[in-house]
Amino acid sequence: MPETKVKKEEDFHEWYNEMVELAGLCDKRYPIKGMNVWRPYGWKIMQNIDALIREEMISTGHEEVYFPLLIPESFFKKEEEHIEGFSQEVFWVTHAGDNKLEERWLLRPTSETAMYPIFSLWIRSHSDLPLKVFQIVNTFRYETKQTRAFIRVREIHFFEAHTCHVDFEDAERQIEEYKKVAERFFRKLCIPFIFNKRPDWDKFAGAYYTISIDTLMPSGRTLQLGSIHQYRDNFSRPYNITYEDKEGRHRYCHQTTYGMSERILGALVGLHGDNRGLVLPPIISPIKVVVVPIIFKGKEKEIVERCREISNRINQAGIKSVVDEREETPGSKFYDWELKGVPIRLEIGPRELENNTVVIARRDTGERKEVRIDDVVDEIGKTFESIDQHLYQKAKEFMDSHIVRVDNLEEARRYKGFIVEIPWCGRKECAMKMEEELDVKTLGEPLERNVEPNKLCPVCMERAKTIIRLAKSY
Amino acid sequence: MPETKVKKEEDFHEWYNEMVELAGLCDKRYPIKGMNVWRPYGWKIMQNIDALIREEMISTGHEEVYFPLLIPESFFKKEEEHIEGFSQEVFWVTHAGDNKLEERWLLRPTSETAMYPIFSLWIRSHSDLPLKVFQIVNTFRYETKQTRAFIRVREIHFFEAHTCHVDFEDAERQIEEYKKVAERFFRKLCIPFIFNKRPDWDKFAGAYYTISIDTLMPSGRTLQLGSIHQYRDNFSRPYNITYEDKEGRHRYCHQTTYGMSERILGALVGLHGDNRGLVLPPIISPIKVVVVPIIFKGKEKEIVERCREISNRINQAGIKSVVDEREETPGSKFYDWELKGVPIRLEIGPRELENNTVVIARRDTGERKEVRIDDVVDEIGKTFESIDQHLYQKAKEFMDSHIVRVDNLEEARRYKGFIVEIPWCGRKECAMKMEEELDVKTLGEPLERNVEPNKLCPVCMERAKTIIRLAKSY
Repeated sequence: MPETKVKKEEDFHEWYNEMVELAGLCDKRYPIKGMNVWRPYGWKIMQNIDALIREEMISTGHEEVYFPLLIPESFFKKEEEHIEGFSQEVFWVTHAGDNKLEERWLLRPTSETAMYPIFSLWIRSHSDLPLKVFQIVNTFRYETKQTRAFIRVREIHFFEAHTCHVDFEDAERQIEEYKKVAERFFRKLCIPFIFNKRPDWDKFAGAYYTISIDTLMPSGRTLQLGSIHQYRDNFSRPYNITYEDKEGRHRYCHQTTYGMSERILGALVGLHGDNRGLVLPPIISPIKVVVVPIIFKGKEKEIVERCREISNRINQAGIKSVVDEREETPGSKFYDWELKGVPIRLEIGPRELENNTVVIARRDTGERKEVRIDDVVDEIGKTFESIDQHLYQKAKEFMDSHIVRVDNLEEARRYKGFIVEIPWCGRKECAMKMEEELDVKTLGEPLERNVEPNKLCPVCMERAKTIIRLAKSY
Repeated sequence: MPETKVKKEEDFHEWYNEMVELAGLCDKRYPIKGMNVWRPYGWKIMQNIDALIREEMISTGHEEVYFPLLIPESFFKKEEEHIEGFSQEVFWVTHAGDNKLEERWLLRPTSETAMYPIFSLWIRSHSDLPLKVFQIVNTFRYETKQTRAFIRVREIHFFEAHTCHVDFEDAERQIEEYKKVAERFFRKLCIPFIFNKRPDWDKFAGAYYTISIDTLMPSGRTLQLGSIHQYRDNFSRPYNITYEDKEGRHRYCHQTTYGMSERILGALVGLHGDNRGLVLPPIISPIKVVVVPIIFKGKEKEIVERCREISNRINQAGIKSVVDEREETPGSKFYDWELKGVPIRLEIGPRELENNTVVIARRDTGERKEVRIDDVVDEIGKTFESIDQHLYQKAKEFMDSHIVRVDNLEEARRYKGFIVEIPWCGRKECAMKMEEELDVKTLGEPLERNVEPNKLCPVCMERAKTIIRLAKSY
């Protein structure tokens, strides 16, 4: 069976680039750096991911909205930390036709500053709360580092949920809900992750705290897949988002956000793919089953007929399948569909025609088995479950086996490509020193502060208050 | 029953503005003119419209893509007529952070100039043709005229299909397919329209010819809902979109596009709405049936139970329904749902509880009738069909009765708020004179040039070659 030119285990980044192109996910030849063309197959997978996000949002009482892309500079500049964090990263619209605009507008890097002045009009009383909305939109960040398809781009396909609450406690409950949403959502995609409470110097600009959702890519670098932010009343004060409580007092709302992006697709490619191509979890695969006629002379017509019959039967069970009737060899068809990551291939040749069977081949393990036609829909269902389990377990084992707890920098140095957990006193200087010494970045603290007693921060040698996670990251 | 403050028949535009706000479609308080916030209900309806577009596109062999929003100035400036037509209408990104960009980028007003340089890479041989893709995206135009929700905005929710063909004839066949798509699509939305071949001076910048899809709003002004363009090889030459034919010769592709926008929603509001609110065609209504318990003391629990039972039964038949269990009077619930345009309301009170019946009230005519519980799903299906017929017929009769054929300007002057058809010699000066005299715009020619013999152009008094349609328009 043909394989990719570059091996995943030898040069992950080259393999990733080849994959994104060969599988028809995106075209990087657009002349603006970091702005890629979504090809039909990539866009379809992303839409399927979006559909799962919508499902989670609707079931947790969020409503979908769409706010304008362009934000007036004066709107943007109301929350100081937010400006500081983003002002070097935004694109500015300054002219319309030949006219210079009276005020500059920026392309949203995220939508707090577009939404919050309007939230302040929408919310009057406690009965308007909680307000829970989300949108799935294009956002823009002026990345100066090396760009990478889906992982670091300048036009970002972005999901953002925004909520307003009566108080801090209710916002905290929202954070708990988002943690559960993330658990369910990423499990569906067979993507394992860890939550990290980002350190103060690396939280979202304007947030009270930030929880990041990080996974470990096969390159040994972590990829931030999303983040959940507690804003407290940091934004509601400058944007004047208040409500009248039951006693008639005016109070500021407390807010949270939850964001994710097309990086999810990057993680799917990187975590599950192999040297034959993508391996898609059945739930988001645009085509779930491909039926390939194995044609020998004399039986062409019957075999193709049988393939269509089976495909219809599968489609009727609500499982999207196609018959590959192109005039190529079966081998070259196998190659194409493996590249696309279609979870199940059915093969029907003269033998299967005669025996009233089909061969089921699964994309993840390559296993093949013959089943009776009458069992095919059942078998497909079971195989999907098994693929889902297998993809998740494999990725989870990889991640779990690459998280290691150490006591000092010496030890930490031995674990290249790992997420290292190390005792920490809580001071920025010490974390910075560790980052420098180990050439890694701070992911943050685990949500449960489970440092063992009597551990010392390996930099200042004072008593550790917590552990900190460090890793190379995208 | 309460009605809107402003009557549709008295002041259409005020009524329209009130409607858009009261029904929760959009919020116009965003501080950039012509950039509105899509509220959940409006966005949901638009998504349902988009789903119908996708259905048409997929069934005609188009693939969905997503091209970047930003277009480098040098890409944009390859087709001269296109630049001339658009350069006063585009927004320019000139800075990123504090840096001035080396080359300015514009926000797409439409995506020819983003897509075509990439098409030139995608297309190599005749076997790559036809190429048929579409996208649904935000586009931007610097409108200087008065803006109006959904009808004239600066950030436009936009659909655009782009195709490439081996020759002019194949592109012409594509145009015929698009005409059929438009017929089917707008019929589903109960929106009648006429095709007009735009005059040369008003075709899409760069097109060989443009067919517009125009409807007549109750204000007596036409609204362009979409357009279909034949580009011939006007773009493929500057963008070098060529293919190798069977004989190995390099030839330029011929291209077409089909575009529509959120104006469709504006037409739905304007054409079907009444003084109680929106009237939505069932096919795109986010909620298709609302069940209202008519509660009298003593039977509260049983009535609500019954409402839920019925609603479940309807949902199981694949029809989205909700029970309105709020603590409001039935009258105030009726008011809310009528405003939202929900096609069918079911009422269940003590009488219906006892008789095992429900009252079906239809939004369009206000008719109410009692039906047996066992018939409710069937009755809903029939009522949807009847609503669909009625909305279409009503709008079609209005449009048809406002198209009038006249011989001279004198006669034409009598038909304010009409689409006037008038004989025309074919010269721009004469059309301009008619526009000026009648204070209208040229819609274009009917696709069938059916001028009667011996008619004269009323301006130059020479023999008419065709008829021209004139109307006030948005």
